[in-house]
Amino acid sequence: MTTADTAIAQLARGTEEIIKREDLEARLATGRPLRIKAGFDPTAPDLHLGHTVLLNKMRQFQDLGHQVVFLIGDFTGMIGDPTGKSATRKPLTREDVLANAQTYADQVFKVLDKERTEVRFNSEWFGAMTAADMIKLAGQLTVARMLERDDFAKRYAAQQSISIHEFLYPLVQGYDSVALRADVELGGTDQKFNLLMGRGLQEQHGQAPQIVMTMPLLEGLDGVNKMSKSLGNYIGINEPAIDIVTKTMKIDDELMWRWIELLSFEIGLAELAALKRDVAGGALHPKDLKLRLARELATRFRGAAEAEKAIEGWQAVVTGAGDTSQLPLTELVVPAEGLRIAALLTQVGLTPSNSEAMRKLKERAVRIDGDVFEDPQRVFGPGFEAVLQVGKRTFARVRLAAA
Amino acid sequence: MTTADTAIAQLARGTEEIIKREDLEARLATGRPLRIKAGFDPTAPDLHLGHTVLLNKMRQFQDLGHQVVFLIGDFTGMIGDPTGKSATRKPLTREDVLANAQTYADQVFKVLDKERTEVRFNSEWFGAMTAADMIKLAGQLTVARMLERDDFAKRYAAQQSISIHEFLYPLVQGYDSVALRADVELGGTDQKFNLLMGRGLQEQHGQAPQIVMTMPLLEGLDGVNKMSKSLGNYIGINEPAIDIVTKTMKIDDELMWRWIELLSFEIGLAELAALKRDVAGGALHPKDLKLRLARELATRFRGAAEAEKAIEGWQAVVTGAGDTSQLPLTELVVPAEGLRIAALLTQVGLTPSNSEAMRKLKERAVRIDGDVFEDPQRVFGPGFEAVLQVGKRTFARVRLAAA
Repeated sequence: MTTADTAIAQLARGTEEIIKREDLEARLATGRPLRIKAGFDPTAPDLHLGHTVLLNKMRQFQDLGHQVVFLIGDFTGMIGDPTGKSATRKPLTREDVLANAQTYADQVFKVLDKERTEVRFNSEWFGAMTAADMIKLAGQLTVARMLERDDFAKRYAAQQSISIHEFLYPLVQGYDSVALRADVELGGTDQKFNLLMGRGLQEQHGQAPQIVMTMPLLEGLDGVNKMSKSLGNYIGINEPAIDIVTKTMKIDDELMWRWIELLSFEIGLAELAALKRDVAGGALHPKDLKLRLARELATRFRGAAEAEKAIEGWQAVVTGAGDTSQLPLTELVVPAEGLRIAALLTQVGLTPSNSEAMRKLKERAVRIDGDVFEDPQRVFGPGFEAVLQVGKRTFARVRLAAA
Repeated sequence: MTTADTAIAQLARGTEEIIKREDLEARLATGRPLRIKAGFDPTAPDLHLGHTVLLNKMRQFQDLGHQVVFLIGDFTGMIGDPTGKSATRKPLTREDVLANAQTYADQVFKVLDKERTEVRFNSEWFGAMTAADMIKLAGQLTVARMLERDDFAKRYAAQQSISIHEFLYPLVQGYDSVALRADVELGGTDQKFNLLMGRGLQEQHGQAPQIVMTMPLLEGLDGVNKMSKSLGNYIGINEPAIDIVTKTMKIDDELMWRWIELLSFEIGLAELAALKRDVAGGALHPKDLKLRLARELATRFRGAAEAEKAIEGWQAVVTGAGDTSQLPLTELVVPAEGLRIAALLTQVGLTPSNSEAMRKLKERAVRIDGDVFEDPQRVFGPGFEAVLQVGKRTFARVRLAAA
């Protein structure tokens, strides 16, 4: 493969769609650094691994020498919901926007290269735009075309109200590409319609239409649903390394391959193929590969030192040999008279309920500092400290304290 | 009837719909001068009687002490057609707008009272409006509501494209009512949807919703189609008095009642009822009533002196007695060898074709200076001057000149 072929293959990795791939090839062939745009909500972010799929792709472009434009859509955020129906979409102030941008910066530069990232706000060009300009922009698209968008089509068919300003927002996003002279726009598959909007508007403004690359939505810990906060199947990028490791070690093998494809930088395409052969042939145990992925992720988000301690602690607990004293300690406040094991496990969050804890106890699946524990009556009081474990890979190092 | 009842009856005369009549009654009862808004295109107007239906209603409000706001919608006119599809909707310049406004002024003050007319341009408030304000405005209406508008519904169903900016224009018109704090908005029946828009937006801006009054479209000379330039069934308000009189005298009796209702100020509601009885009972000939209407219209648009001359000339020709020398003279350039009667009638515009002229000749329906003329061979050369007449009410005073 030529260098160009390698670059294309690397950039295509994990993408859902590239519109159009030949345009991307042609533009890469020019040799100039391309402008890679991705838009983000101006609301306070609390990112999880799912969000980093997009950031990773941006980072890959940076590693190939391209310029990333991290666009914060503050213009519409500062308008809020003009219908007044959504209490959660209150207009943001300039201060809110800047504070949220800082929160983004604190998180995204764990993935992105700061030197090749241009952070922009679309209020920069839309703030100066007049009502007349907006009407002209609105003249560049038809109602029918807008109603082709999946969610609009469904809502219209279901006679759910669509406010007219909602038709303007895709135009705003599309015009951002014009203002930024984007070469490539990245987004989730759910953003495809809006991403294509940029192509049309750029052409109408005499620019070559941007290449659109859609990234899939990452499946969460359950391997089925997309990763989301509300489903609780996520790993937040600010979580302690031990949580990143523990959660990663519990995903199934199929999801492991998916995560490697979308989340790993260390494992390149060629090695990925080799690893698949090794696992299929029995030369490599998936657990070892998960450990490698867990280490990479924990290192990216929490640094090498914390990651190593987490890996070491995890191995100590799971193998039953080694030093668990490096595991982070959770302090739990308990009544002076103490708690029995079922209540304790549930309060720490290792079991969903006391009855489930009792079931695990009977199954001999509960361990304290590596030893099977079976006494439902024993009381643990303030001062007690140990690694509690349910099953092989669910555990916590706790210390009990008095109220 | 009380004075209030009389006022309401007068204002309701000829209207298609009043939304809501009880609101109008209540607002009139406050005794304060109401703000009566009507919007006009910023394009160069060339008004005919059909347009004056609305102006007349505005004038009636003025005569009752109210303030008329003559709104020129220059904001959207200066945007033109952003889709670029309509060559006839080029963006107007500020100079165009002012020139067109002057053309309006020259015409509409033949009906409106200048003292009680406020001429406004909606660029006044929209020119200062930002894109963000426009989005907020767009948030106040839904797509479904907009697609309820008759013409949008039909175009959408027929898969004809509707540009998104077209959804914004009714909002612009509606917001004009907010900016002007209109009490009443007048418009044609075809404007009902847009007029109602003002009510909704005013309520959302904490104002009492305006009363909407729709006026019917005036039937043209044919008594069937709405008066329009393209159908040629119109009387322009700048036409010579003799044309106003001649055309008015040719309308049928049914249309005469309609025109009196919508165009006459002199004939009040009580007299109108009395006249209907007189005509029905045979005490009054409709021709005399048409003459009265023709005189009123000619006087309104051309002044009393020209109107009287036209009436007098018309009567002289039609009765065959009296002075026709006051009729306006049309000069027609003819070849040195002259023209025969059929060609002459057609060139003057009294017959649509030479063969029709020959038919009229054979019917003994052609007169020269009141006398039946029957010779198809006689040649009329430069210097000839006479009143040519076809049938009873179609005539012209012409003088032939050499090329």
